[in-house]
Formats: sequence, C-alpha cells, structure tokens
Amino acid sequence: MSSPSVIRGIGSKSPENWKSPQELEYPPRKFNDDDVLIKVHSCGVCGSDVHASAGNWGPYPGEHLVVGHEIVGRVEKVGPKVTEFKVGDIVGVGAAAGACGECENCKSDNEQYCNKLIQTYNTPNWKADGYVTQGGYSSHVIIEENFVFPIPEGFPEDLAGPLMCAGLTVFSPLWRSLNGDGKGKTVGIIGIGGLGHLAIQFAKALGAEVVAFSRSSSKKADALKLGADEFIATGEEPEWNSKYSRHFDLLLNCATSFTGINYGDFFPCIKVGGDFITVGAPAGNELLSLHSFQLIQTGASMSGSLVGSKKEALIMLDLAAKNKIYPVVEKLPISVESVQTVLTRAQKSDVKYRFVLTDIEEYFDKK
Amino acid sequence: MSSPSVIRGIGSKSPENWKSPQELEYPPRKFNDDDVLIKVHSCGVCGSDVHASAGNWGPYPGEHLVVGHEIVGRVEKVGPKVTEFKVGDIVGVGAAAGACGECENCKSDNEQYCNKLIQTYNTPNWKADGYVTQGGYSSHVIIEENFVFPIPEGFPEDLAGPLMCAGLTVFSPLWRSLNGDGKGKTVGIIGIGGLGHLAIQFAKALGAEVVAFSRSSSKKADALKLGADEFIATGEEPEWNSKYSRHFDLLLNCATSFTGINYGDFFPCIKVGGDFITVGAPAGNELLSLHSFQLIQTGASMSGSLVGSKKEALIMLDLAAKNKIYPVVEKLPISVESVQTVLTRAQKSDVKYRFVLTDIEEYFDKK
Repeated sequence: MSSPSVIRGIGSKSPENWKSPQELEYPPRKFNDDDVLIKVHSCGVCGSDVHASAGNWGPYPGEHLVVGHEIVGRVEKVGPKVTEFKVGDIVGVGAAAGACGECENCKSDNEQYCNKLIQTYNTPNWKADGYVTQGGYSSHVIIEENFVFPIPEGFPEDLAGPLMCAGLTVFSPLWRSLNGDGKGKTVGIIGIGGLGHLAIQFAKALGAEVVAFSRSSSKKADALKLGADEFIATGEEPEWNSKYSRHFDLLLNCATSFTGINYGDFFPCIKVGGDFITVGAPAGNELLSLHSFQLIQTGASMSGSLVGSKKEALIMLDLAAKNKIYPVVEKLPISVESVQTVLTRAQKSDVKYRFVLTDIEEYFDKK
Repeated sequence: MSSPSVIRGIGSKSPENWKSPQELEYPPRKFNDDDVLIKVHSCGVCGSDVHASAGNWGPYPGEHLVVGHEIVGRVEKVGPKVTEFKVGDIVGVGAAAGACGECENCKSDNEQYCNKLIQTYNTPNWKADGYVTQGGYSSHVIIEENFVFPIPEGFPEDLAGPLMCAGLTVFSPLWRSLNGDGKGKTVGIIGIGGLGHLAIQFAKALGAEVVAFSRSSSKKADALKLGADEFIATGEEPEWNSKYSRHFDLLLNCATSFTGINYGDFFPCIKVGGDFITVGAPAGNELLSLHSFQLIQTGASMSGSLVGSKKEALIMLDLAAKNKIYPVVEKLPISVESVQTVLTRAQKSDVKYRFVLTDIEEYFDKK
C-alpha cells in the first residue's frame, strides 16, 4: 500500500482561530525507510494540544496545525527497514515522532531529550524536508519506528491513547526515582487530573504507598478508588504537612496550574535524598520558587521529567496490561464540534480525567 | 583535667549590638561521657557567623551569642566513652555538635540531617539540659565525639578551620554527585568566594574538568591558579551559555547572593540526569525560581546540600592533606577589634577568601 495522497484532519490555520477548528487537507510527508504509516483510530486529548493550538508556546511554524499526540491506530504500511511492526498491528504514538539516534541521549534510552527531537506535531521535521509535523486528530500519521509503541493484545484500544503521553509522562519519573520497585517506598502525587489519576495507579502498581494531594476534597473518592492509600486536601487542611516530616521518597507534581499550591510546604515532607519531580507545565509564567534553605535543609532534589523513553513505554504498557491500569476517560466521536468541545473544556480542566476522540477512521473514511 | 570553671569568648548580648562585640564569660555545659573538651587555637569565619550574630535567622535563644564553627584546637579532656581521641590531639569542629544517633539519617551517614541536630552555636542542647551552645570565638568548646574531626598530621593548623564548614559544605555534594570520582566529568562552580574557592580545588582533586563562574572577571586569575580549567564572567559575556549546551554533570552553586545571577541560563547547560546543587544560602528573601519547563526540558535536578557527614569529612581531610588543598585566608589574631572587623567585612564579602581568627589560646590564657 502506498501513502494516501492526502491526509484529512481537524485543526486551525492560526492561533487566533483555535477555538473554531475546521477540516483540513494536506499532503503526507516523505516516507522514509524506517517509517510506519498509521491509520488513526482514536486520539487522547492532552493539555499540550490546547497550549499549542492557542499559540501559548509560540506561533505555528506551518500553514495550519492539527494537534493530537495520544494516538492509537492500525499499521497500514512499513518502510523496508522496519522490523518491529507489520501491517495490521495496533500501535500507539506519543509526543515524539523522531530523533537523531546518534547522540549521547539517544544512545542511553534518553531519546526524548535528543537535541534534534521531532515532536509529533508542530515541528519542522529535519528528516523529511522540513515538513511541519501534524498530529493525530487526523486520518493518518507517519512516524519513525523508534517512536511507535505496540499496544498489548487485549488492551482496550480506546483507553490506550492517554497512556502514550500522560501515562508515559508520569510512569518514567516513577520508574526512575523508585528504581523500578516501589516496595517500602512512599510516593505523593500532587494534582489529581489527567496526569495524576494515572500516576496514582502506576505508583500503586509499582508497590508504593501512595498519598494523593489535591487543593480540595472534590476528588477524594476518585483518588481512593484509583488506589491512593491516603488523600490530603491541602486547601482544607492548613496543618497537613506537620504529619509528613521527611516522609516521602518521591513527590510527583502533576498539577498543571500552580496557583494556590505552596510548594515550600511540600519540601520538608521529602526524605533526605528524596525527589520532587515536576511533570506539570503551566501555560503562563507561574514559577517554582524556593528559598535556598528549603533545598539545603531537606537534602531533597527538585527536577523535571520529559515524557519517557521507548524502553520505559514498553515496560509501562506491560504493567498497564497486567494490572488493568486504564485511564478514566470521556469519549467523544471525532467531529469539528467534538474537537472544539474537547479543546475548550480541556483548557478549563473540565474533564474527568482525559478526553479521547474516537471513531476517527470511520469519520474520515466517509469523507 | 576537669572542665574549666568558666569559658571566655567574644560575642554579643543581642542582635542589636552585633557590630560591637564584647568579651563574655559563661559556664561550660554539662560534660557527657562521649564528650571532648577542646581548647581552641583558631577559628575560621563563616557567613553564618554574620547571619546568626545579626539575628537574620531569628533572635538569640540564649542570653548571649558567641559564634564560630570552623574550630581547630587541642583536646584537653575526653569522656569515658570516647575512643577516637586522646588528650593532646589536634582536632577540628564544624557546624554541628551533636545528633540523636538513632534515627534513619544518623544511621545512614546523614547525621547532619538529624531532626534533633545540635548546631555548634545558638542551639539549645537537649543532651545538656537545654544549655544554649556557644561557638569557637572562645577559649573552649565541648563537643560530642561524633562531631569532632582529627586534623591530619602536618596539615597547617591555621588553615584547617575553613575546611570544617566551608570545605565540607562543598566537598559533600561534589563527592555524592560524582560518586567519589570526577574523572571524565565536568563540574561548574558558580560563585568564587569562601565556598567556591575550595570547591574548585576539591573538584579538581577529584579529577573533574572545572569551569569557574563569577559575575565579573575580577577573580579570574585566582580561579585559574586554584585549578579551574576555564573561567566565565557571566556578567561580561552575555552569550556565555550558548557554548555549554548540556555540558555539565554538576553545577555547584556557591554564591551567597543571587542578585545578578540568572539561574535560568544555567539549566540548559546541565546534562540529562545531571545536578544543580546549591550550598549558598542568601540572608534575605532571594529565591531560586524556575519555570517548570526549564526543569522538564533539561531532565536535570536542583537540590541543596547541608554541610556533610563525618564520613565525608574524614575523606575530605585525607584528600586535602594529600593534595595540599588549603583555603586562601586572611589571618587576624583574635581580639574584640578583630571580631568586629571580620564580621563587618564578612558581611560585605570583603575577604579573599576566608578569615581565620588565630592565637586564640594565647589571647584567653592572658586573661
């Protein structure tokens, strides 16, 4: 099978119009020997989709933008150098679509930090004549093999998308910080949303004791149901941190807005040598600010983490399949109206806990 | 020999009078079985001495305050449970004077993070009836054995003091971050003062490639002489960071004022998985502020470090003796005027690179 002559997607021609998405048609990019052509079945909705669409992270480098990087679909074509996949395989794609493969980071399972990383959408692809990548709210994507993940047999297809970005984003720092084993460790998850609700499940599956932190108690029942051992509403329990002095091996910050969160309160709760890792990325200028003393006196570290490696993605998918770790989603069959709905609601964090656009193949096949 | 009936020191009765120090007399604390009585010979001057004296970190818990925690002296008496030291030994004391010995931190060579840590001065000592500890600008100190360090034979006594606090403060994070071996690693030292000038020497002795960072080029010659391979004046080379993308395994922040330093510039210079460790503690409300993205995109961590363990102190002293790592000091024989001079000049960072008060034994013996 050859590449389609045209890809259909739903997106915007400029950040000014992002709240009024439209149907778009564009040619596929050049197909390289290590590429996989995927017919898209469903696509999760990430906060990044909103930020990129709205131009919060800069103007569009291309003539239009179709977002979506929690893609699940079926392999329709593989390049001659592809060894992992064959036509018909059900696969996923996350936030990254390519890397140099040759640098120190690529060679040490840190390919997500490659200086030449090609993101799944909104990035000029230096391996394909500078074609600006377009995401998965579309009929097809072309992705290099190293950034395609096999979906485990039997895993509910419509639920796999959110693992590609949100899942891997929380799994990688959990896996690294806990050295793959959470037994005897205590993990705090700050912010219970698209990221945090998966983090609770993965931390638990890795064997850790899990405390969920949220500003209010509105998500308490959900957090406990997802596996949290304890739940703290920081905004309702002003003295909460007195009982957790040097208690946590890891605090994973999944909040995507830092308003109303006093991170200084959290640091004394970390063990000496423990980690505070942030994966939440606010849109604006909200900063993580600490006095030097807060770092010095605790001996804890604050770091960030960018999605995860393919190696970690495979471990995550295996763990998710074995433990039935599923995102909690609201599904909407794709349409121009649905894209408008999910982006505007995701902007307000009005979702429990992740949107998935479904029936994508059917929608574009009818066109 | 019994404890002296009175200890003589130079200090202040209240933060208001810290710039007019005076001679003070006070009884020694209770002498426990694991204690060591030390007759003080010399004492380095730490920035903490200024902050504590001036009340920057709160009021005095005692009736007066004698500071000084870079102490070198001679053992005059040991308790019956002391095994490491005998009368006549030349020993040093740093910022800590006691700990519980039983907690997780004490048992894992992290005793400096003990929740019940007793600091060398200005701390009610729970092991000695709440006696408020007094430092080394004095005739004697009583310190528990675990916080006394043997000075290597032949090490210049007047130069050993600054290793007790400043030296250990930079050595511990270097040692931990580099896993004891700097070969093939690149370390940046930010801020070339009392801490930084020792950090350059230790990083070099551990085998690392060392880049020194200072706001201006005024300390360039000194930094290179101390062993730095390169020197960057960040205030004079606005584009400095473009040549260090993901270059450093460790950046050690030794600056004690953050004004004029853009830490956001430093983060992209750290390798994935690398460390930014701060040991500099500003007096006021200067914060380390980063956007979440700066942490996420680099995969580096920011942490603090509090002095070091005794285990690390012994390794440091051995390394310093073998490599002739000496602080660069200005020596002043102790007197009321000298204490006034060193505190007021240290407040302005007007010293290259550390003050040492000397001839302490002679001064108080004459009284």
